[in-house]
Amino acid sequence: MLSRSAPRVRSRDFYSLFRSACLQQIRLHGQSTASPRIFPPTINELAAAPLPEDEVTVTGWVRTVRKLKNVAFASVNDGSSGANMQVVLKHDQLEGLTTGTSVQITGRYEQSTKGKGQQDRELKASNVQVLGASDGETYPMQKKYHGAEHLRQNAHLRPRTSSTSALLRLRSKTMSALNNFFDTQSFTQTHPPILTSSDCEGAGEVFSISTSTSSPKGAKDKGGFFGHSTYLTVSTQLHLEALAHGLGRVWCVCPAFRAETSLTNRHLAEFWMLEAEVAFVREQGELMTLTEEMIRHVAKGLLENPTAAAELAPYASPTAEGNDTKIDLPSRWRGLARDNWTRMSYTTAVNHLQHAVSTNLTSFKFPPIWGHALQSEHEKWLAGEFVKGPVFVHDYPASLKPFYMLPSLPSNTVSEGATVACFDLLVPEMGELVGGSLRQHDAAALESQIEKAGMKAEEMAWYVELRKWGSVPHGGFGMGFDRFLAYLGGVENLREVVAFPRWAKHCKF
Amino acid sequence: MLSRSAPRVRSRDFYSLFRSACLQQIRLHGQSTASPRIFPPTINELAAAPLPEDEVTVTGWVRTVRKLKNVAFASVNDGSSGANMQVVLKHDQLEGLTTGTSVQITGRYEQSTKGKGQQDRELKASNVQVLGASDGETYPMQKKYHGAEHLRQNAHLRPRTSSTSALLRLRSKTMSALNNFFDTQSFTQTHPPILTSSDCEGAGEVFSISTSTSSPKGAKDKGGFFGHSTYLTVSTQLHLEALAHGLGRVWCVCPAFRAETSLTNRHLAEFWMLEAEVAFVREQGELMTLTEEMIRHVAKGLLENPTAAAELAPYASPTAEGNDTKIDLPSRWRGLARDNWTRMSYTTAVNHLQHAVSTNLTSFKFPPIWGHALQSEHEKWLAGEFVKGPVFVHDYPASLKPFYMLPSLPSNTVSEGATVACFDLLVPEMGELVGGSLRQHDAAALESQIEKAGMKAEEMAWYVELRKWGSVPHGGFGMGFDRFLAYLGGVENLREVVAFPRWAKHCKF
Repeated sequence: MLSRSAPRVRSRDFYSLFRSACLQQIRLHGQSTASPRIFPPTINELAAAPLPEDEVTVTGWVRTVRKLKNVAFASVNDGSSGANMQVVLKHDQLEGLTTGTSVQITGRYEQSTKGKGQQDRELKASNVQVLGASDGETYPMQKKYHGAEHLRQNAHLRPRTSSTSALLRLRSKTMSALNNFFDTQSFTQTHPPILTSSDCEGAGEVFSISTSTSSPKGAKDKGGFFGHSTYLTVSTQLHLEALAHGLGRVWCVCPAFRAETSLTNRHLAEFWMLEAEVAFVREQGELMTLTEEMIRHVAKGLLENPTAAAELAPYASPTAEGNDTKIDLPSRWRGLARDNWTRMSYTTAVNHLQHAVSTNLTSFKFPPIWGHALQSEHEKWLAGEFVKGPVFVHDYPASLKPFYMLPSLPSNTVSEGATVACFDLLVPEMGELVGGSLRQHDAAALESQIEKAGMKAEEMAWYVELRKWGSVPHGGFGMGFDRFLAYLGGVENLREVVAFPRWAKHCKF
Repeated sequence: MLSRSAPRVRSRDFYSLFRSACLQQIRLHGQSTASPRIFPPTINELAAAPLPEDEVTVTGWVRTVRKLKNVAFASVNDGSSGANMQVVLKHDQLEGLTTGTSVQITGRYEQSTKGKGQQDRELKASNVQVLGASDGETYPMQKKYHGAEHLRQNAHLRPRTSSTSALLRLRSKTMSALNNFFDTQSFTQTHPPILTSSDCEGAGEVFSISTSTSSPKGAKDKGGFFGHSTYLTVSTQLHLEALAHGLGRVWCVCPAFRAETSLTNRHLAEFWMLEAEVAFVREQGELMTLTEEMIRHVAKGLLENPTAAAELAPYASPTAEGNDTKIDLPSRWRGLARDNWTRMSYTTAVNHLQHAVSTNLTSFKFPPIWGHALQSEHEKWLAGEFVKGPVFVHDYPASLKPFYMLPSLPSNTVSEGATVACFDLLVPEMGELVGGSLRQHDAAALESQIEKAGMKAEEMAWYVELRKWGSVPHGGFGMGFDRFLAYLGGVENLREVVAFPRWAKHCKF
């Protein structure tokens, strides 16, 4: 049964191979000493390493059991990847091994003998220990197909499914890639506040906080715990601007909150935002380049990952055509990895949209009109049909955008002050993924923009003060992190990429 | 004036050197393609790279200006490190350069001529452009000494100070090191929910949320936006346990909230926690090892960083003795980098404390008594005086700890069920830094622990369900991330390591 093709290594050597791989990874991150490995190799790591000479012990959850005449097979998953370990068992080792059971199995890890499906390695069990039984009759996560709503109702058990765990691993890998990207671009990672007395967007759909009246201690405060109204942040941008005025280039991935009552699959009450803010930037083009390179870096990482596509493919949504074909993830990632994304002004975009209508190339529910917001159907057509890839649309009318943006440079086509130096990144099938702009850095001009927007000057005084001493041209962008993951994973509903999604009437657990 | 010792490189070569350094860093992070550099080199990067042959342009804020008879010097900082760039100016280039002014300066970057202090390189300005003026009369961040309270009152301008920016860069570097550590240990980074219907610790000091009554849309919900009471999380642990039951090994750095009315310098209403949870762990010793290696990894990184100690040293607190000597940061970091941290049981710790009192080695305000909580004075004596380094204290009395912990294994010294399989990490001068435990993984036993703690069974039903199908022995730990940073940076008050600190009556901006 011993494979001749793959060399085996003794356990001691196996662990040292492991250690040196980790050492190498850490070394080039700027640190010369590696931490020792604390826990045993995962199933994912065993699958990629040379075959060990001695027996190994793995732990995980049983996904499926298949009983043949003389032998049985169990698929065991430990959460380290989408690939299960195939375990070969004798019939008398099967006791208690139902879907969901947690097990510890010792045995020889070998090249598969022929004719046993797609697994090229398998564990021949010498010892099987059930750690936690799982009653097949009552377990809500059966191997059969479950609808998304059933899975969300059992969000506490959902990480045990292949689909949710694959999307949660995608989240983790994306976080690592982003950390790495911003490190190499000399950005400082920050944690702006979640509780705030400022309402960044002036949109009003905010959550307020109070100390619980059922609390034994916190109930006596006048004006609340903080002495005034306090909200959960809707965006960290204003605070990030303050940080950029000292640290230069800053970024964060932080939770943000909106009490949105609309129930689309693209909105959550609690969501994570990636935001970046850069001092000493004079053109929004530089910010578009930053956005483009950041997303390209993540996409290239996924394309280079040998297992990412296979792991995520089964859970991708059907294509827009509505047939059974699923979104082709590597093709989507290649679209993001391509160089030189298209950039066009809002004015040009509206011209293209109007031309497409007038030549019967397409039709829209909402007519595209200069000065009106681009509708989702417009955004999807621009990225999906017209450009067939990611597209930056820049210099939107000032009336469509928040108070803090810098007016565009004067041009021939648009009158001065009519548009602002901003951009949205549109991607096929999803529409808007990122929004960014240069910020008004002149104190007097900002004050007049605040007044024009009908906001309270005294609440914004600290923000204006950033411009009073040592102001700098600056700008940044925000990306819905969950939305980015949904796009990378090809799933339509943001609720699938979030461990415990929260939206109106839904905050179970 | 041209230095002969350091070779110069042409700008084009300079950028390509830069790019290849970034490429190398990314490559070993698992990705073969590097993103191009988008923004110009920072002052920190210029200081470390070969001298460029052509002129360079830098941007930043003026920290100080010194005018001599024939020449002037400005210190310029761009937030990339604590080291300012020394700029050599002619008198007629000084106009408008006061503390806080933002500037763009072009010139030749050269080896310093002798006798000009500690700077070994300087920029000979050929062109100086003021980007944002700073009125020296009104600017709240003068070069003179400001008290911590003055700085916190100006939290929006505080990142422009050397002290706050140094501590914020420490935060960023620590985040990177932690990302790297958990990546190499095969952990999945997760984002557990912030809004929750569960009160993890049962401590009661929680913030509730509601939709703002001043909100134009959100005010009409019955029972609130979610239809029931909803809180800000006090700890992500319970949700992390659910994630560990599918993903195996998980970690997060997330905000947590407590409506603490006590006003110590070790507590904030909004703080960041690092939490990790590991499936298939049977001894709390493994979790102590994980904690130890994680902290050691960060400490070693700081020791290897050529500028970290010098940058942070000026802002360290005086030593406990109350004299002018400041905490020696490299010595503190070496204490964390040492191998084989001391571990002792709570029972042993109490014995040591009692012995120290009875032999007049020390005295305490609170007598150490088995079954009583260790006071801060006890913790500090154990780590600071007795062990003189980090120390794990494990197996505390069950009555002192939350409901979810696993009882300790029976031993000779303590009766069965009297203690739980947990640990606290104590460090000199600060006391508790980390708390962890094995979690009760038996559903029936957990239900009885919940009942005994007087908690509502129905609220905890989902948590118990984690143990009903495929339960596994598991455990984890939580570390106050801000507290860790305060310890690494040697600052006493957590408010100094947080960009916009929030505590009772303080949520400005």
